Amino acid sequence: MIVVKAGGGQGLDMEAVCIDVAELVQRGEQVVVIHGGSHETNVYSDRLGHPPRFVTSVSGHVSRYTDRETLEIFAMVAAGRINKLTVERLQQLGVNAIGLSGLDGRLLEGTRKPALRIIENGKRKVLRGEYSGKIERVNVRLLQSLLEAGYTPVVAPLALSYESEALNVDGDRAAAAIGAALEAQTVVILSNVPGVLRDLSDENSLIDHIPEQEAEECLDRYAKGRMKKKILGAIEALHDGVGQVIIADGRVEHPLHRALAGQGTTIGQLTERVGR
Amino acid sequence: MIVVKAGGGQGLDMEAVCIDVAELVQRGEQVVVIHGGSHETNVYSDRLGHPPRFVTSVSGHVSRYTDRETLEIFAMVAAGRINKLTVERLQQLGVNAIGLSGLDGRLLEGTRKPALRIIENGKRKVLRGEYSGKIERVNVRLLQSLLEAGYTPVVAPLALSYESEALNVDGDRAAAAIGAALEAQTVVILSNVPGVLRDLSDENSLIDHIPEQEAEECLDRYAKGRMKKKILGAIEALHDGVGQVIIADGRVEHPLHRALAGQGTTIGQLTERVGR
Repeated sequence: MIVVKAGGGQGLDMEAVCIDVAELVQRGEQVVVIHGGSHETNVYSDRLGHPPRFVTSVSGHVSRYTDRETLEIFAMVAAGRINKLTVERLQQLGVNAIGLSGLDGRLLEGTRKPALRIIENGKRKVLRGEYSGKIERVNVRLLQSLLEAGYTPVVAPLALSYESEALNVDGDRAAAAIGAALEAQTVVILSNVPGVLRDLSDENSLIDHIPEQEAEECLDRYAKGRMKKKILGAIEALHDGVGQVIIADGRVEHPLHRALAGQGTTIGQLTERVGR
Repeated sequence: MIVVKAGGGQGLDMEAVCIDVAELVQRGEQVVVIHGGSHETNVYSDRLGHPPRFVTSVSGHVSRYTDRETLEIFAMVAAGRINKLTVERLQQLGVNAIGLSGLDGRLLEGTRKPALRIIENGKRKVLRGEYSGKIERVNVRLLQSLLEAGYTPVVAPLALSYESEALNVDGDRAAAAIGAALEAQTVVILSNVPGVLRDLSDENSLIDHIPEQEAEECLDRYAKGRMKKKILGAIEALHDGVGQVIIADGRVEHPLHRALAGQGTTIGQLTERVGR
């Protein structure tokens, strides 16, 4: 079982990911795809006259402010546009894909973030009405029954709060949570970087392999921004029984095959290669 | 088993429909919801700078021209926005709703419409690139397995062509096809008219009951525009084993209960009332 997170940011080649997924599925592998949506949500937010707003937390972390209108645009773009176009493409490639968001059948559940404590113009402020959260439960039975029936689930990163509010959730963490819940052998996280870099300004400083026990240290030493969430997700997934998490380049041809063949950063065990 | 088509046009009260669906589900009834999307697709097409285009066929029938860009906006609005907000609302009402489009797991399959033959400025023209079609197959096993597992499917009216192209399909016909495939006792079609009217300008000229064998005649005598598709769908559904099709008002409080209690036009058998 392979869980693949693909995209969200700019530059990722979704067509190449679909081609690789199709080949894996045709070889008999069970695959779950999780996609992103942030870049296109920014584009549509601008086009619809509700430009994205990014805020800085008191701890210095920059994140999107997901008010209700942004949440609805995110649902439209991620669960509508990206999810359905990915399902259509996979179907054309012979994969019986089924698109779901985390809302559907309570696939992904978690806690809604409380009011944000931010710094704006040098002043501390409390910002309410944030619709994002952290996944705590995965409806494994739903995913398993779909996989057993031969479907390939394609998941948009939304979740339901315990009060059934729709939330925007991080796609990398969603992939990690789904991988853990399914006890997947491998979780692959494809993005627009080659993997974990020793030096952010040098794409050749890739770290090949990080044993599980060194992941926390790497998080502190090398990870910045979005890479933090990927490594955090990896640590959680490994802790919950995933064999390995591979963080690899999604901008190349055959991104998934390359990742499975070891071209990226493998966190956890170095197991037998599934790729070519 | 009750299949409900709700909305698409302006004025339908989706909140009231969700409340009634929740009550039926809590009473142990199996329900499948099909929603529309045309009105909101028009709104978003305008907002995104790709205004809807309506064309007149050589036979005088007016329909939306669904080019690829419109299809993608329709997917975004219907399968993203409307579908997910309906799932969220039903989940808040205690219903374990699961949102799907006809693309997912090849839920709805059919033939893509060939090039449109239209009349524009008095001249005959052939218009290519139309992405709409007619449903011919329903993936009953997928719906049944979800219903058996306790989920309430919420379906967006898209379908896959046999070549796996995403298509815009008519929601009323989709409801009829799903009702027929599931051999539902009742298909309810809620819209912004009280039912089939003898006189279109008089909402009090409602026809209460149309026996199956008189449906064709009513189609010719009373149906105009969108009502034609509803009655056509009803005839197909009855032919394929649905007990009754109720065309009723979706703009009122408790629209589904009222419909099931007989307030609308019942086509087919007059069976025991399920409503209050």
